[in-house]
Amino acid sequence: MIEIFAKKLTSEGFAPFGDVIDFNREADFAINNGKCDRYHGLAITEIIGEDANTGVSLGYGRHYEIPLKLEMVERHPLGSQAFIPLEEKPFLVIVAEDEDGTPKQPVAFLSEGGQGVNYHRNVWHGVLTPLDTPSKFLIVDRIGEGNNLEEHFFDNPYLIKI
Amino acid sequence: MIEIFAKKLTSEGFAPFGDVIDFNREADFAINNGKCDRYHGLAITEIIGEDANTGVSLGYGRHYEIPLKLEMVERHPLGSQAFIPLEEKPFLVIVAEDEDGTPKQPVAFLSEGGQGVNYHRNVWHGVLTPLDTPSKFLIVDRIGEGNNLEEHFFDNPYLIKI
Repeated sequence: MIEIFAKKLTSEGFAPFGDVIDFNREADFAINNGKCDRYHGLAITEIIGEDANTGVSLGYGRHYEIPLKLEMVERHPLGSQAFIPLEEKPFLVIVAEDEDGTPKQPVAFLSEGGQGVNYHRNVWHGVLTPLDTPSKFLIVDRIGEGNNLEEHFFDNPYLIKI
Repeated sequence: MIEIFAKKLTSEGFAPFGDVIDFNREADFAINNGKCDRYHGLAITEIIGEDANTGVSLGYGRHYEIPLKLEMVERHPLGSQAFIPLEEKPFLVIVAEDEDGTPKQPVAFLSEGGQGVNYHRNVWHGVLTPLDTPSKFLIVDRIGEGNNLEEHFFDNPYLIKI
């Protein structure tokens, strides 16, 4: 199996695939008479289709063992999708560039506790992958009709290491 | 000063003003081959106007003293606004019904650690009000042009107690 080592999650490294949602930056401005620093618009959702909106959901994800055997990735043609951890724990973020409708060799990132991500619309990505313990996440994605899921199963799985 | 005592935050009690985002309910369905329980669409954002989208932002809010002297509330005519705590700490949620463009006597709720809220579009509400310590929040609201803020200052402030 081809082995892939997870890299540190940074806004710059993740930019081709989406946005990193974290406090590792300067606040943009203060609100509420100076009592709250706002880190503004770290992700902008993209939602396609009539009768569809951005929704806020919660997820309780069970953890995975490392090394992780990666057999599939998925993408959402009709909307972006953000996962923000509600506990300060790292999780694995796996993405892949597309080539003619097929994912290329995946790239893996390991988040720091507290970092969230927003996958841009139609970006191949792995499923929610907490490590060590089950974890709570906030999910910001498309709620609406239409087929918004495409899956790809690899002929040869990859082995993801951290 | 009129004293207002905060009530326990529940979906039912908060329904006239918005949505409660919490795990105190049944999961709607499982995703990721059963590895993740999804609490689906706890809030649906409402965003009005061309060139506007739902954005994901972060906030670092300084805490307030209790009892709280409430001198103003605000509302956003062009969009809903959600605040979800990134730490399991309670915060104060203050809202008011509208009457001919003016807020009526406010209603206060005290969240449990981990509960977030989504203020529906154009609902009068107090500013982000953590208690005891500064707190990190995720914010899901409108990013775009246009005047999306209306403030109301009370002639006679209220005193909010918990």
